[in-house]
Amino acid sequence: MLIHSASQLLTLSGGPQRGRALGNLGIIPNGAVVWQDEQIVAVGESEALRHAFPDEPQMDAGGKVVMPGFVDPHTHAIWAGDRSAEFEMRLQGKSYMEIMAAGGGIFSTVRATRTSSLESIVRQTRVRLWNMFNYGTTTAEIKTGYGLSTATELRMLQALLALDKEGPLEIVPTFLGAHAIAPEYEGQPDVYTDLICNTMLTVLQQWWPHNAPYHAMPFVDVFCETGAFTLEQSRRILTTAREMGFPLKIHADEFDNLGGASLAAELEAASADHLVKTSAEDIAALGRSDTVAVALPCTPFGLGEAEYTPAQAILEADGLLAIATDCNPGTAWCESMQFPLALACRYMRLTPAQAIAAATINAAAAIQRADRLGSLEPGKQADLLILSVDDYRHLGYRFGSNLVQTVIKKGHIYPV
Amino acid sequence: MLIHSASQLLTLSGGPQRGRALGNLGIIPNGAVVWQDEQIVAVGESEALRHAFPDEPQMDAGGKVVMPGFVDPHTHAIWAGDRSAEFEMRLQGKSYMEIMAAGGGIFSTVRATRTSSLESIVRQTRVRLWNMFNYGTTTAEIKTGYGLSTATELRMLQALLALDKEGPLEIVPTFLGAHAIAPEYEGQPDVYTDLICNTMLTVLQQWWPHNAPYHAMPFVDVFCETGAFTLEQSRRILTTAREMGFPLKIHADEFDNLGGASLAAELEAASADHLVKTSAEDIAALGRSDTVAVALPCTPFGLGEAEYTPAQAILEADGLLAIATDCNPGTAWCESMQFPLALACRYMRLTPAQAIAAATINAAAAIQRADRLGSLEPGKQADLLILSVDDYRHLGYRFGSNLVQTVIKKGHIYPV
Repeated sequence: MLIHSASQLLTLSGGPQRGRALGNLGIIPNGAVVWQDEQIVAVGESEALRHAFPDEPQMDAGGKVVMPGFVDPHTHAIWAGDRSAEFEMRLQGKSYMEIMAAGGGIFSTVRATRTSSLESIVRQTRVRLWNMFNYGTTTAEIKTGYGLSTATELRMLQALLALDKEGPLEIVPTFLGAHAIAPEYEGQPDVYTDLICNTMLTVLQQWWPHNAPYHAMPFVDVFCETGAFTLEQSRRILTTAREMGFPLKIHADEFDNLGGASLAAELEAASADHLVKTSAEDIAALGRSDTVAVALPCTPFGLGEAEYTPAQAILEADGLLAIATDCNPGTAWCESMQFPLALACRYMRLTPAQAIAAATINAAAAIQRADRLGSLEPGKQADLLILSVDDYRHLGYRFGSNLVQTVIKKGHIYPV
Repeated sequence: MLIHSASQLLTLSGGPQRGRALGNLGIIPNGAVVWQDEQIVAVGESEALRHAFPDEPQMDAGGKVVMPGFVDPHTHAIWAGDRSAEFEMRLQGKSYMEIMAAGGGIFSTVRATRTSSLESIVRQTRVRLWNMFNYGTTTAEIKTGYGLSTATELRMLQALLALDKEGPLEIVPTFLGAHAIAPEYEGQPDVYTDLICNTMLTVLQQWWPHNAPYHAMPFVDVFCETGAFTLEQSRRILTTAREMGFPLKIHADEFDNLGGASLAAELEAASADHLVKTSAEDIAALGRSDTVAVALPCTPFGLGEAEYTPAQAILEADGLLAIATDCNPGTAWCESMQFPLALACRYMRLTPAQAIAAATINAAAAIQRADRLGSLEPGKQADLLILSVDDYRHLGYRFGSNLVQTVIKKGHIYPV
């Protein structure tokens, strides 16, 4: 298949983009891309490629931007139920304790997810994944963490593997048993930490279908935050996971600075995510590492807060910056990667070009898939978008609606 | 036609909602609505209406919210060109003067609009109107103001009448010759004000097709702001228009407090819009009047600013509050009414119920169409939405995507 005449073909070629190099879109005007089966075989100028591949079926993208599919490197998009009533209570001025007493908060989602069958979790999640896909996300990292027991966490992973197999959205699964202290272990965080290290991770390693395509091992992630896991507990979990061969991620500095970002750099985690209250020292540590800093601007937005990830400081420190939705039922039910781009331009002062690179090639790096995803280059998977606009800068500039017209995933074409 | 089994039928019955009364959705659980031709004939409980109207074709809305179509009471949705390059320049730190020197700012849109044919303006605008419609806006106020000469302003109105006739989005047109001082009159704001009062309004009154359905007269609006029109110039324009029988609107207090809101109340304008820097005195004046306060939260958002319309103070003063997109190419290219609802919940502390009332029945009041639009009541026009969710609170709670599944306009059904 050959798409030609794109007003701008954004290749994002050349690998992840560090620091001030962020924002190199590798634009080919009047561009074309050719793929065969699931793989891109050529990228270049339209006339040249139409001449070189005369027998490929052709698609005209005149007046449209063609770019890699968005990679959403941080979501909690699998859960049961919703928390719309809690959202209203917050706006009515109800306190955190009143909301908890009314059955709200993260444990309401844990309750709903624990008591839902595998089929029900799959059905409720499938709707969201199609929304994400239609807004241009071709691959999403999705975390467990609403089970918080061995069996229910595995059920969430089972649901993720089933949904990934079903497609078209490709799922990179993350085990987040350390999302919160399970309610059964209230006041005993170290006992729950033991359970994760000694039981959950071992069971997971044995249970995991190591032959799953592209999924040698799931990520292991920890919510390192006051009220969740301390730095020491986080270190124990991540070190244990690392010794068992799991790749790592961390939630750090959403509300408090505990040093999670430096821990991530030290342990060579794939990413450190949130990073709102991150110290200069932590930012410097990230800048010296290959750990990707994943900004989640939908979360402060969702909470009506004014403080965002200090993206400029991260770039100044030569860090690798990515953007994700953080799609979750508590603080940020946002399925579209286009929206955090618009936030990043306004509240993190990224240009549209920087935001796009952060949401494609750098996002792929945050899930250790930059070898296969996030850019349009020969050999890469044929995951791409045709936008309804002729200039990439409409991403970021416009907000609240969908600029994606066609999604191509593993070479298959899906009109939106 | 009969829609039944809605999990929640939001009637918004009982007219515009003042002050703390805002947010009464008039919910009928397991609700139904019946319309014939363009008009609603009954609203009530599903079993009763299915019994009373056995011969109507039926549509099952089980598990879905049914509500009035959004009314977007303040947009500049008609223009030519775009300003995505300017957006990027701002993020690169270019100054206002550098952007103006590069041909940016409002006058770049004026230039593009002036030099576009009627057909081209219609074609470029049509795409936006369909987007607005698919996000649930069934009626939109749309302002001229990118012509700034008699002929080009009339051409914009001509385009609006053509687009309204074409449908399905219903358009309420506003003449905004006083959007900015036309470039030919730079430094001579009083001369341009004379031109508006003595020529433009007279020509408009004679030219206007007074038999246009629902459009006895267009609104006349003024941008009362430092750098645009002073309070005295605004008063002259609005008083002249009022004497000629035009209904009035005003842009007030977006960046500076000049007293425009009190002027609107004094002149019994339909609405005063923006209202970010509004004084307590102006808010009190609005509260005593029937002038609707139209908040435009997409504008501060679009500019990356932190200050929004003081909605709570307006409600406290017993004011009528509405919400609009302000869709425009400079500060807020947002086509979806769902997005300003999400902003209003977070940055104006409205509940989802209040935001919905502000975007339907009160928005209809802001364009003096509350007798015919904005609620589901017998006698009203059959403009309604079927959402993909079972609870109205998902509006506001969720952001960045489209919860509208079906739009019904003047009785016609449009799947999204």
